[in-house]
Amino acid sequence: MKTLGYYNGKFDELDKMMIPMNDRVCYFGDGVYDATLARNYKIFAIDEHIDRFFNSAGLLKIKIPYTKDEVKALLNEMLQKMESGNMFVYWQVTRGTGIRNHAFPDTPANMWIMLKPAELKDMDRKLKLVTAEDTRFFHCNIKTLNLIPSVMAAQNAESQGCDETIFHRGDRVTECAHSNVHIIQDGMLKTAPADNLILPGIARAHLIAMCKRLGIPVNETPYTVDELLNAEEVIVTSSSQLCMLAESVDGKPVGGKQPELVGRLQQALLDEFYAATDK
Amino acid sequence: MKTLGYYNGKFDELDKMMIPMNDRVCYFGDGVYDATLARNYKIFAIDEHIDRFFNSAGLLKIKIPYTKDEVKALLNEMLQKMESGNMFVYWQVTRGTGIRNHAFPDTPANMWIMLKPAELKDMDRKLKLVTAEDTRFFHCNIKTLNLIPSVMAAQNAESQGCDETIFHRGDRVTECAHSNVHIIQDGMLKTAPADNLILPGIARAHLIAMCKRLGIPVNETPYTVDELLNAEEVIVTSSSQLCMLAESVDGKPVGGKQPELVGRLQQALLDEFYAATDK
Repeated sequence: MKTLGYYNGKFDELDKMMIPMNDRVCYFGDGVYDATLARNYKIFAIDEHIDRFFNSAGLLKIKIPYTKDEVKALLNEMLQKMESGNMFVYWQVTRGTGIRNHAFPDTPANMWIMLKPAELKDMDRKLKLVTAEDTRFFHCNIKTLNLIPSVMAAQNAESQGCDETIFHRGDRVTECAHSNVHIIQDGMLKTAPADNLILPGIARAHLIAMCKRLGIPVNETPYTVDELLNAEEVIVTSSSQLCMLAESVDGKPVGGKQPELVGRLQQALLDEFYAATDK
Repeated sequence: MKTLGYYNGKFDELDKMMIPMNDRVCYFGDGVYDATLARNYKIFAIDEHIDRFFNSAGLLKIKIPYTKDEVKALLNEMLQKMESGNMFVYWQVTRGTGIRNHAFPDTPANMWIMLKPAELKDMDRKLKLVTAEDTRFFHCNIKTLNLIPSVMAAQNAESQGCDETIFHRGDRVTECAHSNVHIIQDGMLKTAPADNLILPGIARAHLIAMCKRLGIPVNETPYTVDELLNAEEVIVTSSSQLCMLAESVDGKPVGGKQPELVGRLQQALLDEFYAATDK
């Protein structure tokens, strides 16, 4: 198959899959998800993503009807059905099925998988970013399906020929609409702390670990838009782009002052990704 | 039919209806809705609800593929198919169908309707409320399908044997998880202003209009949790319960000091509802 949609044991090409209108996703967006890349039929950082998936579900009291090992086995089983082993591997759980009613239903949660072809993005390209006030809810640590603010931000960025939106609450930078953002200042990585205002990104965790391995100090404290605009480098991380540099924010140049340090980080993270997903 | 699910021209009993997995509701909750009661096959305040529906969609740049008159005709046409004319009439629009991608798709929006039997709630019963910090996004004026915080609040209230949750941002009362909340103080109605922190409720608008008609002053300014706890009456409004009184908040008695005034309001609002939905 070229793409895959999976729902509670049934699967087919994505555009042929149907789901019940009474799934709570249809009325409340009532579910959580996770996603990562596969290369050569190997799913990158799968255990970390499954841990986060269960954590997201737990915070919303959604009971995933599988163990972590079972989710992992299911994802690998579905991946084996694909024509290519280079895929965006996405899965979610929704809180059951029933006539629309806000309070929890008695039915079991529903398990979903979505696979589509994808390659790691080219890290040589630099990103154009825009800024926007962060008007999202205060549960950004949970990877939910309530994503309208991210949708609006993505469209706004795209309409300006840009790649991503940097959210800030007042002066404080939180994260991007669908990635984390960090700065290099005085040769040090500065990144917003993993509180309820940002998603604890797996690529962010890998970046932090790699900095420490390479002797680059890491400071997990809030930083401001002004610090970002004047940083030595601005780095954007996510599971589908690992570690990319920004070249502009709201049309003005940023970063570009620590190419050697960032190059080392990017290469080390790429090496890690390739080693974990080799044939 | 006993219930109805409608999706882009197809319809059936709700539990038989299926929708495409690639509808953006499944990944982003990317849509808006509205709802009201029908009695005797007459949909209450339909024009106001359709106006708000188009306003919600417009704020999210979703193009509803019908005129207001067409939506109204469609809702009435579907209602005629039902065994009973006393229904919860719910409809929504989602931003189209396509492989998961944050930015807007090129496909047209999808039109949904959901009908289920319902009666106006008994206004003689008094509500038990709980309070919770309002951690929702800053777009509460838009009636979106991103409803996880309301789902969690509803479940929390129910688990305590209560009916609804009063949200507050710090000291300031905003609204309930799926209704508006108001107080009577010194014989005056006090209600949070219709800004981006609350839904501009249709039942709220009717309450305000009725107060003015009955000579009860209305003050649309922010008020605090403390003012609510000490108010003469606490009133909860929504399209399925019009105007109900609260008897307790977090287990402590509230209100009960203006029964005559509230009784007049409730009766006038009921009369309005019955007159508009008579055979």
